[in-house]
Amino acid sequence: MGKLWGGRFEGGLDPIAWEYNASLSFDWRLAEVDVRGSIAWAKALMKAGVITLDEQHQIVKGLTDVLTEIRTGKFEHLPSDEDVHTAVERRLTELTGPVGGKLHTGRSRNDQVATDFALWLVDAIDRVDAFLKLVQKTLVARAEEDMGVLLPGYTHFQQSQPILLSHWWLSHFWPLARDRQRLAQIRERAAVLPLGSGAIAGTPFPIDRKFLANQLGFKAYTPNSIDGVSNRDSAAEYLFAAAMIGIHLSRLSEMLILYTSAEFGFIDLSDAYSTGSSLMPQKKNPDTLELTRGKAGTLIGRLTGVMTMLKGLPSAYDKDLQEDKVPVFETTDTLCLMLPVVAGVVSTLKIRADRMEKALNPAMLSTDLADYLVKKGVPFREAHTLVGKAVRRALDLETPLNRLPVSELQSISAFFGDDVNTVFDFEASVARRDVPGGTAPAAVTIQLQQAREFLKSHKIRSSVPHSETPHGGDGS
Amino acid sequence: MGKLWGGRFEGGLDPIAWEYNASLSFDWRLAEVDVRGSIAWAKALMKAGVITLDEQHQIVKGLTDVLTEIRTGKFEHLPSDEDVHTAVERRLTELTGPVGGKLHTGRSRNDQVATDFALWLVDAIDRVDAFLKLVQKTLVARAEEDMGVLLPGYTHFQQSQPILLSHWWLSHFWPLARDRQRLAQIRERAAVLPLGSGAIAGTPFPIDRKFLANQLGFKAYTPNSIDGVSNRDSAAEYLFAAAMIGIHLSRLSEMLILYTSAEFGFIDLSDAYSTGSSLMPQKKNPDTLELTRGKAGTLIGRLTGVMTMLKGLPSAYDKDLQEDKVPVFETTDTLCLMLPVVAGVVSTLKIRADRMEKALNPAMLSTDLADYLVKKGVPFREAHTLVGKAVRRALDLETPLNRLPVSELQSISAFFGDDVNTVFDFEASVARRDVPGGTAPAAVTIQLQQAREFLKSHKIRSSVPHSETPHGGDGS
Amino acid sequence: MGKLWGGRFEGGLDPIAWEYNASLSFDWRLAEVDVRGSIAWAKALMKAGVITLDEQHQIVKGLTDVLTEIRTGKFEHLPSDEDVHTAVERRLTELTGPVGGKLHTGRSRNDQVATDFALWLVDAIDRVDAFLKLVQKTLVARAEEDMGVLLPGYTHFQQSQPILLSHWWLSHFWPLARDRQRLAQIRERAAVLPLGSGAIAGTPFPIDRKFLANQLGFKAYTPNSIDGVSNRDSAAEYLFAAAMIGIHLSRLSEMLILYTSAEFGFIDLSDAYSTGSSLMPQKKNPDTLELTRGKAGTLIGRLTGVMTMLKGLPSAYDKDLQEDKVPVFETTDTLCLMLPVVAGVVSTLKIRADRMEKALNPAMLSTDLADYLVKKGVPFREAHTLVGKAVRRALDLETPLNRLPVSELQSISAFFGDDVNTVFDFEASVARRDVPGGTAPAAVTIQLQQAREFLKSHKIRSSVPHSETPHGGDGS
Amino acid sequence: MGKLWGGRFEGGLDPIAWEYNASLSFDWRLAEVDVRGSIAWAKALMKAGVITLDEQHQIVKGLTDVLTEIRTGKFEHLPSDEDVHTAVERRLTELTGPVGGKLHTGRSRNDQVATDFALWLVDAIDRVDAFLKLVQKTLVARAEEDMGVLLPGYTHFQQSQPILLSHWWLSHFWPLARDRQRLAQIRERAAVLPLGSGAIAGTPFPIDRKFLANQLGFKAYTPNSIDGVSNRDSAAEYLFAAAMIGIHLSRLSEMLILYTSAEFGFIDLSDAYSTGSSLMPQKKNPDTLELTRGKAGTLIGRLTGVMTMLKGLPSAYDKDLQEDKVPVFETTDTLCLMLPVVAGVVSTLKIRADRMEKALNPAMLSTDLADYLVKKGVPFREAHTLVGKAVRRALDLETPLNRLPVSELQSISAFFGDDVNTVFDFEASVARRDVPGGTAPAAVTIQLQQAREFLKSHKIRSSVPHSETPHGGDGS
Repeated sequence: MGKLWGGRFEGGLDPIAWEYNASLSFDWRLAEVDVRGSIAWAKALMKAGVITLDEQHQIVKGLTDVLTEIRTGKFEHLPSDEDVHTAVERRLTELTGPVGGKLHTGRSRNDQVATDFALWLVDAIDRVDAFLKLVQKTLVARAEEDMGVLLPGYTHFQQSQPILLSHWWLSHFWPLARDRQRLAQIRERAAVLPLGSGAIAGTPFPIDRKFLANQLGFKAYTPNSIDGVSNRDSAAEYLFAAAMIGIHLSRLSEMLILYTSAEFGFIDLSDAYSTGSSLMPQKKNPDTLELTRGKAGTLIGRLTGVMTMLKGLPSAYDKDLQEDKVPVFETTDTLCLMLPVVAGVVSTLKIRADRMEKALNPAMLSTDLADYLVKKGVPFREAHTLVGKAVRRALDLETPLNRLPVSELQSISAFFGDDVNTVFDFEASVARRDVPGGTAPAAVTIQLQQAREFLKSHKIRSSVPHSETPHGGDGS
Repeated sequence: MGKLWGGRFEGGLDPIAWEYNASLSFDWRLAEVDVRGSIAWAKALMKAGVITLDEQHQIVKGLTDVLTEIRTGKFEHLPSDEDVHTAVERRLTELTGPVGGKLHTGRSRNDQVATDFALWLVDAIDRVDAFLKLVQKTLVARAEEDMGVLLPGYTHFQQSQPILLSHWWLSHFWPLARDRQRLAQIRERAAVLPLGSGAIAGTPFPIDRKFLANQLGFKAYTPNSIDGVSNRDSAAEYLFAAAMIGIHLSRLSEMLILYTSAEFGFIDLSDAYSTGSSLMPQKKNPDTLELTRGKAGTLIGRLTGVMTMLKGLPSAYDKDLQEDKVPVFETTDTLCLMLPVVAGVVSTLKIRADRMEKALNPAMLSTDLADYLVKKGVPFREAHTLVGKAVRRALDLETPLNRLPVSELQSISAFFGDDVNTVFDFEASVARRDVPGGTAPAAVTIQLQQAREFLKSHKIRSSVPHSETPHGGDGS
Repeated sequence: MGKLWGGRFEGGLDPIAWEYNASLSFDWRLAEVDVRGSIAWAKALMKAGVITLDEQHQIVKGLTDVLTEIRTGKFEHLPSDEDVHTAVERRLTELTGPVGGKLHTGRSRNDQVATDFALWLVDAIDRVDAFLKLVQKTLVARAEEDMGVLLPGYTHFQQSQPILLSHWWLSHFWPLARDRQRLAQIRERAAVLPLGSGAIAGTPFPIDRKFLANQLGFKAYTPNSIDGVSNRDSAAEYLFAAAMIGIHLSRLSEMLILYTSAEFGFIDLSDAYSTGSSLMPQKKNPDTLELTRGKAGTLIGRLTGVMTMLKGLPSAYDKDLQEDKVPVFETTDTLCLMLPVVAGVVSTLKIRADRMEKALNPAMLSTDLADYLVKKGVPFREAHTLVGKAVRRALDLETPLNRLPVSELQSISAFFGDDVNTVFDFEASVARRDVPGGTAPAAVTIQLQQAREFLKSHKIRSSVPHSETPHGGDGS
Repeated sequence: MGKLWGGRFEGGLDPIAWEYNASLSFDWRLAEVDVRGSIAWAKALMKAGVITLDEQHQIVKGLTDVLTEIRTGKFEHLPSDEDVHTAVERRLTELTGPVGGKLHTGRSRNDQVATDFALWLVDAIDRVDAFLKLVQKTLVARAEEDMGVLLPGYTHFQQSQPILLSHWWLSHFWPLARDRQRLAQIRERAAVLPLGSGAIAGTPFPIDRKFLANQLGFKAYTPNSIDGVSNRDSAAEYLFAAAMIGIHLSRLSEMLILYTSAEFGFIDLSDAYSTGSSLMPQKKNPDTLELTRGKAGTLIGRLTGVMTMLKGLPSAYDKDLQEDKVPVFETTDTLCLMLPVVAGVVSTLKIRADRMEKALNPAMLSTDLADYLVKKGVPFREAHTLVGKAVRRALDLETPLNRLPVSELQSISAFFGDDVNTVFDFEASVARRDVPGGTAPAAVTIQLQQAREFLKSHKIRSSVPHSETPHGGDGS
């Protein structure tokens, strides 16, 4: 039975309803930040004249002891602990006696949990960001290592034009850069202190919220107490950012899976990131990549679930909001495995440059052939049609495009000259695409520099220090 | 390191990749059905001449021992147990020696897990159906108990017409009846045996799949081995049905929450299903109903997640499919709490018939007033306009509609006669709606009978017995 | 300004609010079924003694004229037409005079639109089902035509075991069979008459709902008027079924896209279902398949949208429900293009049996090699390990598995005999999988027969005739 | 038949496949930005030496004429116009002759459509932001106008503590402030030029991408051509931001709907934003608010759809990406009605301060009563329990909490003194919550100032000017 709110009630909660309602099994992950928030609150209460300095010391000492129990795994849960807040306050009171009962003055679990959640989320964002950076570094390392290797570029899953493998690796760097920008912005919006909002109306004690925010590493506090307790934008934003990360890694994974197939054979996964078949001894399966692709779906589902829950609410705090925690916790767990695994896959795979090169087909230079005509003065649209006919002819004659006799070409257009064969050079084709962002080695070298620059200059941390350690123990 | 597929591999799996890949932490819930499936498979292997009767006995004996360990919680997991199938086979071989290594002949984890999943799901559906029936019975009981009580019916959240409370309770019975029909149909489609499909191509041993199906209580087996291993329709269907249940309970919960507010005051929740506030001593919160509303969002998210995962697949088996398990397991857990909690809330709440009656407003009889004119020959459309004017007049005069002097009414239409006051009788209004499905007491009495009939006649079980007990241990 | 409800109101609707609220732009698609429902209602009103036979005749005549205007595109919309129901009644009254104003007696737009929607949906399901059947027939035709062709089966996107192409085609037949079963069941649940439910409480006139149901081709009517007007289960169910169809076609499309790539080269799409590139003259893109894959995502989104909307509702009718129409209409349009396009793609593509055969790799027979050892008495688990070693050896020696000298094999296990080469026969491997549902030609022949049987015996229509023609015009 | 890519193809596209593939029906909305992008491209081609200044002038002149046709509605579509790009180029060539065929040199529809989309999106964001600002201003105006009015604050839908109505209005201001911050950040990320990326590999002509970006008002260009053509992050981000807006407006709407009910009666909607019932003459329905609530579900569905589509893709451009357009267009249309409608509802509704005041219940001051004890030295936890008992006692005696005799209170705790009645003052309770963000009039006055400050200082526009006018016509 919830000790926190018992006075008005006659009977106990039905046991199944208790189980349904209890959140300790998952919100215990907030235990450290809950203590952190409570220590700050105790100091603020003293500063507001609600408790004495001596009472503050007793409470902070008690909370520090609770924290030690939490960290060493010695905290003992009771069946009556409804949630993390109840459990911590219950234990505090056991350790300190009645003075512990003064801690909850002027606050509510509504502003308390919102504060805990903000502290936890900011830390989670920092961890995810670090893993994103790891994957980015891995991609940069691959781009450096594989420089010079050519492979077909695909659009519509069809061979389109030759590209540099390094260019392809980097094409997966920039989406993660955007992910990190998003995370930094979400962190900024999440790092706003709700404490002091009470249940809905604000606290009636002269709490110095600026002091509180500083204590907990926030740069700002919520401007409206109703919004302060019911705002879960940052949960939704975080799940959205996570789902975008999932999408980006899924697209990379899909392509790598394809490249590992016998038919492509462009890469060889390390045994350290592959699994076998219980039935077929020859199989080497890209399970880690498939799971990444699959889990991207799960991440989208978690976002949908939380948004659907939020959409069903009226103003202010409702218990439905409790459903935000599990998806945020599980999503963080997913990302903190998914990202290092992808980094591991990418850094340990072996590329098979010979297979990539062999896959290049002269027909991939059709655009270059059209550009050849353009340079002779043929409008591109017409050049495109003429080359289309050449491609058709080559298909009909079952000959590679570059083996089509010049006479055949000239029967299509007199603009085709004897120099036409110079077109059929994959390296030259790649080198020609030397605009910023293009696949030419020179352009990719600059792009690599930009990527390194991003890694160096991008900073996520702007407000809340992500250490989970409470700041000292006395009245600073 | 996976014992099941090690021969081809040189190095071990990276530890993080191992954790990412391992499914034992969640698929252990399949342990009992996995053993059940394996026992049937051992018999089928014997029948196909692949193993001897003696070998079958050894294997079945071993599996039965493993099952006992599972049920008594004595099964010891090893760090190398990749998934439930590996763990069970590993333990079997420890208990039986090399003969255990014969069990996996001719099957794959692909058809094995699909079979396990079908067995588990069928059982889960039976459990959920039983809880749905419980909620339905509770609604019928309330409808019986509260017969005769009137309250406002709401459309657009606005008072519309008076209805019987029993009619309202039953309006939440029929959606659950549809849910149960859906579940029965999904169960039928789920209860089709995949075993014998191998990894993708079928098994090369002369397995009698009909015998296998019978052993496991299935009425049919999959007609195509590729589809057999990659079909997860029933996971999606089940999650959809669960989300619909969530929607139906959310709509009921939303309305009950509203009814508990001070402004409505139509019902009083039992303390056994309410909680208090840590800050505000007077609060009694409908947390269980709010959680039901919130969890309905989570259920929709799980459906989205699995469908998104499935949509991203090519033909045949891919590891992504592993992501179907957690949502199906968690959804079952959610429903097996949500449904009994709602039943508990509904059966223990107290209605406040006086508040309901007091809320009835004569304006809710405006349609009856229009019908009064219709009976005097005024076309309904015109009658509607005339009564609209009367309502407007009453609003302007700040008088209840039934207190508007007949002279006022007659200034709007001469068809209003002195008998107009007979219209303003809530009971009579309700009694007039005596079509099938209407709110008249006579109609609701028939409806109640139909509801009881449904409870009696609806059967979910058609093929797979839902007991988890394996069928005997010897060569039947 | 809505003529239907104006009396009580003082000012007109704000123009933007009008645009926001008006549904005529999309619900006009209900015009024919709305008239159909109204004709039946007029008859029911006469039968109930509310209008005379002569009035019924006038109204039915008027409605029939309105229907003609609708069908010939001559119906003129007025800016004041709020929705389809308003528009039809307005026009009816113009044509018939005041008697038209009697039509709406005893009904509400709530039960009217639910009835219209049920009629429309049943018809939509029939159309979608017919297209599904078309795709199924196309798959059967391919399976018949391509019988005997072998190709690699893929699991985890990796070559696993050889299969029959016909078997693969049929693996896409059965998911569609489940889709059609689902649709038939949804149709059954959708085809329940809501009319007679009024706004919420039922109608006060002695309407014969059984007669009404018969008139409109329904076998049953809703048992509870509140549920009758607010139930949108069938919209959600239909969108779910549509999304599953999308998933099934997406999986097929994904694989076909892959097969069209240069690296696989297994199939050649017809020019009639391919498009080119504006830049690259050689490109032939499987756009139709990519769109199918992409639209499957859109279909899932529509389901999510409607379920999220439904989840946010209280009991009874709320205007939010209007949001069910556009997704249901658009989803039907999507399916009625997607399905024939897929049928067209499949029936016109050219398979390249030579490329398929060439892709077969002896390593795909590793399981057969293990089974060879099994037949010599080696437990499968051990055989799997031994063959794994052989595969490893072949990889190390860069030799195909079937070229590994017998001596090498024997150094791994003495059970390998000189007859081991008989294993390396793709046709024999396929033929061995001769269980029901297996890939052996004999088994696939039976499966084909089952598929044809399904096509012949499956019936969707059980209750509502899907013609949109109203049933006669007079008082029968 | 697509003129853009015909050369290689033998037969025409199947008519249904054509309809399936054609996007003109929806991407025509890009027509103006497409011309704008093409004008800039023509200049860049000239600058790169690909076309002459004279050719540039001809092309730009032609495009300007096309633009005029677009704007005046005189552009005639041909059945062969596959998409907006094809249509514009076709018309250009009709107007200019063969020189028009030079425009597409060095670009692809892949980078072209990505550029068009970015231009369109930036403009859409500006429009949505302006409407958000309108709603915010309306909320500020209400907060100013309604200052001093008290009403119950609700948590868990239950009365919790008295608050200022102005505080409640502002609680809906800040979520929209976060929405606007998000939009500004998304705009920044969207406003990066893809043009110059070609189909995948970059353009082989020496295009000055910085010049191009400047011409089109972008501050940056994409750093990688593969990512440049396949990145749709901004579509997903925008749909997410839109869904969050939907959630915020849905929560406001839900509460307003509730407030309009007879039982609450806190507000009266203007007739300009209400509708009536076709059946019940007395009804006045908050349809506009219900639609807002319902459409929030649709917005979430559109996000899900696009994310699911994106998740199913491999690297680089695939046709599936075409599915991003309709949801983005429709979402913009939805928001551009939803936001002004909500602004209209809020600004025109009438509050009923008397009803709000009457709803205040002394039990809402229980926390104040506990705080009273706290000030006498009772630890809050104990005070909470004591007040809980007082509430219980009052319920049992069926007396309001403030009428409970002091003797009764003192039998619960001796700390209750004769001054206890001073607690029961709603105004004083509100005034006590005078922390930043609290509901005290002084705090709300400061908050109002902060809101006005936000309105003044927040700027969305940072890079792309949102005018759709192309910048001049000659080679500047």
